[in-house]
Amino acid sequence: MDRLITFSDGTLYFIDQTRLPNEHIVDGYTDYRDVCAAIKILKVRGAPAIGVAAGYAVALAAHQFIAMPFRDYAARLTSAADELAATRPTAVNLFYALNRMRNVITAFSGNDNRRLCDALLAEAHAIADEDNALGRKLGTVGAALLKDGDVVMTICNAGSLATAGIGSALSCIYIAKEQGKRVSVYALETRPLLQGARLTTYELSRNGIAVTLITDGMAGVVMKTKGITAVITGADRIAANGDAANKVGTYGLSVLAKHHGIPFYVAAPRSTFDLSIPSGASIPIEERSAEEITVFNGKRIAPEGICVYNPAFDVAPAEHITGIITEDGVLTAPYRERIQKLWGGASHG
Amino acid sequence: MDRLITFSDGTLYFIDQTRLPNEHIVDGYTDYRDVCAAIKILKVRGAPAIGVAAGYAVALAAHQFIAMPFRDYAARLTSAADELAATRPTAVNLFYALNRMRNVITAFSGNDNRRLCDALLAEAHAIADEDNALGRKLGTVGAALLKDGDVVMTICNAGSLATAGIGSALSCIYIAKEQGKRVSVYALETRPLLQGARLTTYELSRNGIAVTLITDGMAGVVMKTKGITAVITGADRIAANGDAANKVGTYGLSVLAKHHGIPFYVAAPRSTFDLSIPSGASIPIEERSAEEITVFNGKRIAPEGICVYNPAFDVAPAEHITGIITEDGVLTAPYRERIQKLWGGASHG
Repeated sequence: MDRLITFSDGTLYFIDQTRLPNEHIVDGYTDYRDVCAAIKILKVRGAPAIGVAAGYAVALAAHQFIAMPFRDYAARLTSAADELAATRPTAVNLFYALNRMRNVITAFSGNDNRRLCDALLAEAHAIADEDNALGRKLGTVGAALLKDGDVVMTICNAGSLATAGIGSALSCIYIAKEQGKRVSVYALETRPLLQGARLTTYELSRNGIAVTLITDGMAGVVMKTKGITAVITGADRIAANGDAANKVGTYGLSVLAKHHGIPFYVAAPRSTFDLSIPSGASIPIEERSAEEITVFNGKRIAPEGICVYNPAFDVAPAEHITGIITEDGVLTAPYRERIQKLWGGASHG
Repeated sequence: MDRLITFSDGTLYFIDQTRLPNEHIVDGYTDYRDVCAAIKILKVRGAPAIGVAAGYAVALAAHQFIAMPFRDYAARLTSAADELAATRPTAVNLFYALNRMRNVITAFSGNDNRRLCDALLAEAHAIADEDNALGRKLGTVGAALLKDGDVVMTICNAGSLATAGIGSALSCIYIAKEQGKRVSVYALETRPLLQGARLTTYELSRNGIAVTLITDGMAGVVMKTKGITAVITGADRIAANGDAANKVGTYGLSVLAKHHGIPFYVAAPRSTFDLSIPSGASIPIEERSAEEITVFNGKRIAPEGICVYNPAFDVAPAEHITGIITEDGVLTAPYRERIQKLWGGASHG
């Protein structure tokens, strides 16, 4: 599988996901502010991928401003990191990656722009490589939960288009396939932005996984009638009690899975946990513009002037989650205690 | 409120709902075959409205073929009714209306085309008028379940655009408003064909009801956080045990409502009951084309060649239904016994 996000010669490259599946266009970025805009309009999306792109965007800024006096240079890069942090509020990976980049700036003891620039690029590469390695490790943990013939339902896109590697939720399916298990997938189209229809079906079918597309409203009847054996979703932020914020619709899926006795798994690397957040109720939920729902391809699909509610995320409560698949194993209830233990009682690392 | 479907001087008129909310275009029909096509592509939709349109379409055929010899005339009209019956498989109102039209043909004793033509038009008008009166009666029954300040969730469009009158699910809200109760609505957009976004928000806002549009996947989190006091849906066919087929997504809504302790009502006239069907498992469910989901406004939103599952309906099981709102009162469990009693032990009437 190709890497989603690459960096060479002072240019950051990633595919414009808003144009998939019709056009496969890789854009090159030389200004970190264009990366901010790309994150805001979801040209790059998925919590881990946003973190990786933001890390590289700081490295990009380091290339852009290399000619500044060192004192201004470090301040300018910190301000770039702040701008990047303001692009989207929910995914914790963004803040995690930017904190690592800021730490490189803070810890840098010299006054040589080029050396700081190199150190920042090395850190961005490290974040990307770790994410890639994580994907395989996490997928191996998750694949152990799947058996030949399983039918998995998923929402949004927690795959190779959402991360620097093979994904979180979908990595379990990719690794299961490598292990010779035939696992098929029902993909929710995931309104309003149709990441399931545009991205998940695209990457699964390109990688030889049988996938059936359904609308979000069909999740219930498909669980009842199509032999779904597991639901696996990604996560954008997981609180200290195990509550998991993810694409809006995930909460409803968790209720439907519970009703049908279907295991409901959240697949997310440790960097998605935010132990400073006691429960899902404290996770900030981004509300996006009404036009994402009322306008499609420039054409209105709802009358002018009506009210619209458009939260980008909702929260699957820990009590609906059968297990959280991480690179270090599957966490199960009681989550608060086990999450504390995994982090050795320390705060987010 | 204007009547959705009208007939004058041998022409049948109804609004093209596929063009709402952007264009308000009323088409005139003089050939019943064009009405068949309009029903198939959902220019007219909603179980009661399809029945009324089909009744008028037989009257239209009676105008079209008025010059035939009488023997051929009656046979030609019966065959027109058969073609109309083949347009859509799930809504029972279609068959109910066409049976009434066929009965007029069968029972007709003369051999005067004009008199049969008049009798058919009179029957079509009767079906429409009864549906209109039903809407107000049913709405009055349903409004009694609503109180000032209630917040209702609904799916698809079971309103004045789905019937010859003020609707089924939405009639409860219209009558509640007439009674001075402030009732607001969360409308699910209802993919793939967006009847909620295009039609329900359109008619509710035109009629002074506060409506908020959400995507289908948001139903769960909105039930949890927005103080929903009732879910009210329409129905396309109700089995003898109270299982109710309605727009796909209704089953999932019924599960979510149960989980949240929110009353789940189905609003449908008695003509929607099909006592020949023992339970929801026997209701035929129309599967529609993949392109309804994968193509939007002529643009692909999912890759070519993937599998798609596109049932138009699903079934809310009787045990999830708090009450079925009919023109004759609210039916509650045990449904089988009470439905039998309402029909006096007789079969469908």
